[in-house]
Amino acid sequence: MTAMSARQEGLGGILATDQYQLTMAQLYWREALAERTAQFDYFFRSYPDYGTHQAGYCVAAGLGWLLQWMEETRFEDTDLATLGEQTDGHGKQRFDDGFLAWLSGHGDFSSVEIDAIPEGRVVHANAPVAVIRGPLAMTQILETAFLNHLNYPTLIATKASRVKEAARSGLVLEFGMRRGPGSGAHAGGRAALIGGCDFTSNVALSDVVGFDPKGTHAHSMVQVFMALGEGELEAFRKFARSYPDECVLLVDTIDVLESGVPNAIIVFSELEARGHRPVGIRLDSGDLAYLAIQSAKLLDQAGFEDVSIVLSSDLDELAIWQILSQIDAEAPRYGLDAERLVGRLTFGVGTRLITSHGDSALGGVYKLVAVSDETGEPVPAIKVSEEVTKIPAPGEKRVFRVYDQRGLATADVVALADEKPFDSDRVELFHHHQNVHRTLMTAELSGVEELLEPAFSGGHRQDGDPAIEVLRGRRATDLERLDPGVRRLVNPHVYHVSLTGRMKRLQRQMVESAMGRG
Amino acid sequence: MTAMSARQEGLGGILATDQYQLTMAQLYWREALAERTAQFDYFFRSYPDYGTHQAGYCVAAGLGWLLQWMEETRFEDTDLATLGEQTDGHGKQRFDDGFLAWLSGHGDFSSVEIDAIPEGRVVHANAPVAVIRGPLAMTQILETAFLNHLNYPTLIATKASRVKEAARSGLVLEFGMRRGPGSGAHAGGRAALIGGCDFTSNVALSDVVGFDPKGTHAHSMVQVFMALGEGELEAFRKFARSYPDECVLLVDTIDVLESGVPNAIIVFSELEARGHRPVGIRLDSGDLAYLAIQSAKLLDQAGFEDVSIVLSSDLDELAIWQILSQIDAEAPRYGLDAERLVGRLTFGVGTRLITSHGDSALGGVYKLVAVSDETGEPVPAIKVSEEVTKIPAPGEKRVFRVYDQRGLATADVVALADEKPFDSDRVELFHHHQNVHRTLMTAELSGVEELLEPAFSGGHRQDGDPAIEVLRGRRATDLERLDPGVRRLVNPHVYHVSLTGRMKRLQRQMVESAMGRG
Repeated sequence: MTAMSARQEGLGGILATDQYQLTMAQLYWREALAERTAQFDYFFRSYPDYGTHQAGYCVAAGLGWLLQWMEETRFEDTDLATLGEQTDGHGKQRFDDGFLAWLSGHGDFSSVEIDAIPEGRVVHANAPVAVIRGPLAMTQILETAFLNHLNYPTLIATKASRVKEAARSGLVLEFGMRRGPGSGAHAGGRAALIGGCDFTSNVALSDVVGFDPKGTHAHSMVQVFMALGEGELEAFRKFARSYPDECVLLVDTIDVLESGVPNAIIVFSELEARGHRPVGIRLDSGDLAYLAIQSAKLLDQAGFEDVSIVLSSDLDELAIWQILSQIDAEAPRYGLDAERLVGRLTFGVGTRLITSHGDSALGGVYKLVAVSDETGEPVPAIKVSEEVTKIPAPGEKRVFRVYDQRGLATADVVALADEKPFDSDRVELFHHHQNVHRTLMTAELSGVEELLEPAFSGGHRQDGDPAIEVLRGRRATDLERLDPGVRRLVNPHVYHVSLTGRMKRLQRQMVESAMGRG
Repeated sequence: MTAMSARQEGLGGILATDQYQLTMAQLYWREALAERTAQFDYFFRSYPDYGTHQAGYCVAAGLGWLLQWMEETRFEDTDLATLGEQTDGHGKQRFDDGFLAWLSGHGDFSSVEIDAIPEGRVVHANAPVAVIRGPLAMTQILETAFLNHLNYPTLIATKASRVKEAARSGLVLEFGMRRGPGSGAHAGGRAALIGGCDFTSNVALSDVVGFDPKGTHAHSMVQVFMALGEGELEAFRKFARSYPDECVLLVDTIDVLESGVPNAIIVFSELEARGHRPVGIRLDSGDLAYLAIQSAKLLDQAGFEDVSIVLSSDLDELAIWQILSQIDAEAPRYGLDAERLVGRLTFGVGTRLITSHGDSALGGVYKLVAVSDETGEPVPAIKVSEEVTKIPAPGEKRVFRVYDQRGLATADVVALADEKPFDSDRVELFHHHQNVHRTLMTAELSGVEELLEPAFSGGHRQDGDPAIEVLRGRRATDLERLDPGVRRLVNPHVYHVSLTGRMKRLQRQMVESAMGRG
């Protein structure tokens, strides 16, 4: 493998965290609390809101690379040396030798346990996506890396899932690296694949995840041959000569219908005469719906009914939805079957996917919900000043998903760790922050599923390092079991996330008792 | 340094590119064009538009890490092995052994030359920020990494510059890693520092760039002590005991004015009695302007007039502008000097900076502008189908910045490589795509500056690897020389970017001749 820059390499280690995590950890160590067991929950409070459209669900992503990072990362001697060099305003060592010695012995994640909703699954606001338990100092230090590894990929997998839904039977190719956020584009590309993209153009990432990278060619290739006195047709011929069995031609360098498609058809005919099957054309500008229809007509007339049409140019779920709506309406007027045309489309999606255009951050949080007292008994923790909508369910917990008679998921339910709420005939469910409740009849459910699974324990990931195809399969299965109203691209239904009665009572008690303790 | 994951490490190498760059490179190699000299220009067509507000300039960032990457990166044997394993649909090797052998010998950037506007400088739309010259195959392969290394940092440095302007005499702390885009958060944090942020909370990045990382503490620290039966006051006391000379207390876990600030004042008094100087408080929720004023009053009454006030909670340039406007209006009513209060503020800026809230991508492009013919003579290249606003200035070029009698920059001027346009008394300048021109009298200028400087040559960076402080100094100097109208946060003036008459004529000729050659 290519070595990264020595200077940049250090950025991937355990010091990729916020300074205050380390100062708090030292404080806990000095107060003999560093090894107390703490529990943090990871959850997000609202779905991405893109302004004109909104997500009704998210797709969990990022856990795999987080767990791998946790397996491999600890405070190394060089990290401790870096910390030992920090000084406060008075030239005094900020992290003292005793704490650094403690980090040298305890500064890894071998005592941290994570249960999480598996990567690729549909997840919802205000239900924990992961529960983290372990020594207070190390679980606190983990916070920044945890959030960094999960928030952005979950955001991108969610956007990709919407893009894939909008694309219907068309394929989706991710190619956002050029405007993606630095090296974060790799995590973004991986998340895009988890969320449903069929391929990525990213060669390094494709290699790591075991995919075949995809691509066509750029305008610059046609420009090179034009500058050297040859035309678009010669450029296409040369490309076809090099890639006779993977020939996708970009047809809008000069004029799509006057030059690009006719030239592509000439080259495709030549390819076919030599026994090769031409693969596709790409349109990268203009009215893509109109040009796709007209290009399809020309290709069909020339006998290339199977040649695919790749569309690109600032696409996202709304742009694709618009293009397909226009094709649905207009294709029949030109004698084309709309659904067949959609099936031969590939959507190249770049900038707007890798940056989650319209809402570029997922507000996932990592909140302390319990810390053990000196006897080892967990004590629930709460932040009193929060707006009531922000108060998380306290303490140790389980998360269930319930399915109705149609087999569709109707609610995620947050319960206490020792509860078996669905053992009774009827379950009282409370809104996670409003004073609203409803009764669920257990007999009316087709299934109840526990969502949190062991993800990390004993210093090792417990999720089996599943292939991207497995993660994509989870998304597909979960989407099939999600109400179409919740899947809607615009104004989706709000999915139910509820607390059990016992959890709701604990939350109330905590607030009341904490108010008295300020 | 901590080792990165072996699997993820490969993501930083030369295969961090789009597949089509490699297939085009092989095509050029097969056509004996791989070593022809090509020129690409890097530029952006429009400034970030955040919806309700817009940038009137950008701050160049990312070049330093790009050049470092180019020095260290080439096709390694493992990369060639990865490419050798790719097959087309028929099981045939996609990249043949001849091409891989060529890459083994020529697959580095030692023959690529880059001139660029130095990192940290103010840059403008439609004027080249960098000019890249070298063998066609390797300059084509460079495209993705080039754009990935520059687009996102320039976007973030620009946002940071606006945040710093809005903050006036207040300090700015970047802390976006938790919601930043994976490992891209490091490049984003570095760009934020270049754009004017005073500090970052990112420990690893601070170490790499030679800064002291900053931080306070989280709500979770107060929650821990509350859960264990102690109150906010005891939590503050413990923090002060650990960090007597760097004590910044987060005062909104319970209630800012009823609990947090009074408790902080008790602890500050205790600190002072022990000979320490308390540093600050932090407000992370609520009406930050109101709470800052009231907290300042309480602190002043207690004799802590120098204690700083850190504000955080979804801040960006508009939120900060609003807070300071409110402080300007309200502080005097409470007997406080507004400007003095602003000077004791620090703004903690996270999510909205690291994701460039409102416009999360810079549309910088890397466009072929010339390729050499067989005699080595550069031939300008152009893409005909572009909308007229998208046609870049063709061929080899120089970029000048002219300053008026006030010493303010009034235009960036794109000229042919052999032109000395400011040697004459009057210069005709043309709008870069509209048919508008104006005459500039050289005598009325206070200065003319050439902007592109050698950045990479002979396999080595030529920019001297300047410290972040130097890059920040460039930004500060350039901002002082920028019209206040262009610096405005909302509806800025449009800065002039012009072509010389000769460049304009070449652009026209190119379009006309290319139209005939399709």
